[in-house]
Amino acid sequence: MIRFYNARIMTMEQDCSVRQGELWTDGDKICYIGETPAELPAFEREINAEGNLLMPSFKNAHTHSAMTFLRSFAEDVPLQTWLFEKVFPYEDRLTPEDVYAFDRLAILEYLAAGTTAFFDMYFYPDSTVQAAIETGMRAILCGSINGSAKDVDRLNDQFQKFRHIHPRIGYRLGFHAEYTSDESLHRGVAELAQAEHEPVYTHISETKKEQEECIARHGASPAHYFESIGMWEYGGGGFHGVWFDEADRAVFRRNGLWMVSCPASNAKLASGIAPLKEAAAEGVNLALGTDGAASNNALDPFREMYLGAVLQKLRNMDAAAIPAASMLRAATVGGARAMGLHDCDALAEGKQADLIMIDLHAPNLQPIHHIPESLVLNGDRCNVSLTMCAGKVLYENGQYFIGASPAEILADTEKRIARLTG
Amino acid sequence: MIRFYNARIMTMEQDCSVRQGELWTDGDKICYIGETPAELPAFEREINAEGNLLMPSFKNAHTHSAMTFLRSFAEDVPLQTWLFEKVFPYEDRLTPEDVYAFDRLAILEYLAAGTTAFFDMYFYPDSTVQAAIETGMRAILCGSINGSAKDVDRLNDQFQKFRHIHPRIGYRLGFHAEYTSDESLHRGVAELAQAEHEPVYTHISETKKEQEECIARHGASPAHYFESIGMWEYGGGGFHGVWFDEADRAVFRRNGLWMVSCPASNAKLASGIAPLKEAAAEGVNLALGTDGAASNNALDPFREMYLGAVLQKLRNMDAAAIPAASMLRAATVGGARAMGLHDCDALAEGKQADLIMIDLHAPNLQPIHHIPESLVLNGDRCNVSLTMCAGKVLYENGQYFIGASPAEILADTEKRIARLTG
Repeated sequence: MIRFYNARIMTMEQDCSVRQGELWTDGDKICYIGETPAELPAFEREINAEGNLLMPSFKNAHTHSAMTFLRSFAEDVPLQTWLFEKVFPYEDRLTPEDVYAFDRLAILEYLAAGTTAFFDMYFYPDSTVQAAIETGMRAILCGSINGSAKDVDRLNDQFQKFRHIHPRIGYRLGFHAEYTSDESLHRGVAELAQAEHEPVYTHISETKKEQEECIARHGASPAHYFESIGMWEYGGGGFHGVWFDEADRAVFRRNGLWMVSCPASNAKLASGIAPLKEAAAEGVNLALGTDGAASNNALDPFREMYLGAVLQKLRNMDAAAIPAASMLRAATVGGARAMGLHDCDALAEGKQADLIMIDLHAPNLQPIHHIPESLVLNGDRCNVSLTMCAGKVLYENGQYFIGASPAEILADTEKRIARLTG
Repeated sequence: MIRFYNARIMTMEQDCSVRQGELWTDGDKICYIGETPAELPAFEREINAEGNLLMPSFKNAHTHSAMTFLRSFAEDVPLQTWLFEKVFPYEDRLTPEDVYAFDRLAILEYLAAGTTAFFDMYFYPDSTVQAAIETGMRAILCGSINGSAKDVDRLNDQFQKFRHIHPRIGYRLGFHAEYTSDESLHRGVAELAQAEHEPVYTHISETKKEQEECIARHGASPAHYFESIGMWEYGGGGFHGVWFDEADRAVFRRNGLWMVSCPASNAKLASGIAPLKEAAAEGVNLALGTDGAASNNALDPFREMYLGAVLQKLRNMDAAAIPAASMLRAATVGGARAMGLHDCDALAEGKQADLIMIDLHAPNLQPIHHIPESLVLNGDRCNVSLTMCAGKVLYENGQYFIGASPAEILADTEKRIARLTG
């Protein structure tokens, strides 16, 4: 058992209110949250939080982790040049061992920023599963097939292989996007989802072009088109949603779908600013993702929360556009639920111990007026002092406890970078 | 003498190219940049940079440092409510000792983020001078008078008092804004600037309302109006410039004025996105500032560089809108020159040793493809491992060397916060 005491605790079970007290973990679970009792059991470790904050860890609800290898490889170029000249040809060279190596690089970044779970869409899922299991992270893989009906078998094979492979690993049905697959694939995925009673996820309405071309092809936006073929009978979600109109958001709301916003990627690629103010007001489920490092360039939940809040102010020319705290919720509770992790969304007895400690004494978080707003508008990843996943401390004050040193991981990626892009 | 060796060095004398080598300091100056020579002199300290980057420190070209006391005090409210209900009444309660205390809090944040100089506009300049001198920072005060002609004497008094008070302190003529003063003040400041051969600085075209009301009052935008009364005969600059049109930018270009952009503040207060793409293309001098912590909420040059780059992509819906490296230049060389610090703008022999070390081994900066772009698009203040001002290391790996401990400074501000906002 591990004991945190003298803590401020934001459980996020309901709102973002903060209480004083202690939190204990037993194995991979939280076993106590409350006042200091008269008698204490024996602990393997006792951590004096010194008034600092315990809160749910961040859940990155959309990423392509291994794309760390193309971080800052091509900047300030138009989207099509970037994709066809600077991404696809290099991705073709990747081996499964490369993906494992670049996933580990991403995991170093996730943990230092307080992220304990990521919803990953990429090649070579075995590599990602290995990297997550070895380091102690939680990973949910998302199907990423494209093409036609024949590719659905591959999705089903992966789904059956990975869905129950490990307590910290999961698999959700998904495909790349409407524009990279044909109707036979879409109908095939919808049938599989209905047969398995499973949610489905995909990139959706990321660019204006995508939205318009889908309407030209199917007479409906992606959200409506997928609804019409029964894709979302068991829920799911869409990544980006930049070009959602009111009717698209209504599809998401009535199907309980998750709108996973990636504001930094949408800014870097000049895709636009998603209508989060409207979505939040209408009751659409919101989560946040970083997208891949090549299009961000960071894997940092603080960046996404901050942009999620302030870009709405610019989009609406209204300083009161969206409550900052709503982004804190999207980055934690929302992210967990979006990827189906209902046992580590908030801090509560019996839930998984996926949590972080925030150093509230850091100058950039002082003075303390409003903690949730402060975390979104002035907090940053430097404020994360401890990251725990499934009851294990994986990161603490700059040190990693993940079975490999950062130096080893960087030496490995450096060698591969030279081969891939040299 | 201090020696940095095994370094990557970005001098920024010309462009953002990076060389290998070493850099030595002697007293407050840089005395050598180059290869490792056959014979070495004696050093008081030798620092193995281990391949990490030395570059010019950041210069914050617009701030109200002591506003740290209102950080996160009122969020998500409209601008007028914020200013009249949540800022002005509390500022009225400030004492000189409070300003000193909250300046020191800001300085903790500046140094950890690699900022060594700040261009400060606030009450009680004696307090700010004291805080900067004691901690080893560099501060340039900016006149902030409002009202009418009678207030110009006060500006002149401060100018004469502070202009040569200390090698790390300076004073520039300035006034708050067109809309908080009358024409007699503007003409008085212009006369003083001409008599003293000095540049003048002011808030300018921050909001649409300000721009339109000036046109209604004076038949010209602030940039044109001030030019017409001879305000900028000896240069100067304007803070914000969000609503600058092409003609305003032409005024700035032909007078060699500095457009100091504060993208985070302009986003939080929903003022808009400044036309930096156009300004850069037209050759307008660019610098970056954080504005005060109440309207940002961070005092972080990485945030400003990042927003300076990506908001242009959104404003122009063009992923290639502005080169990321131009923001690195604005935050360092540009900032220094904007506030008249021509001796610490870049790294060169004989210049002031105002520099930082960046940990390029940090996972978020890996792999290394393009260093300048990487610093802007994925770098953050956690990557600053050392900050040196005038040849003295003031911050290194989380430790401060400023004559006071963070704990002392925070205890002092906490007590004051309770009194001011309790």
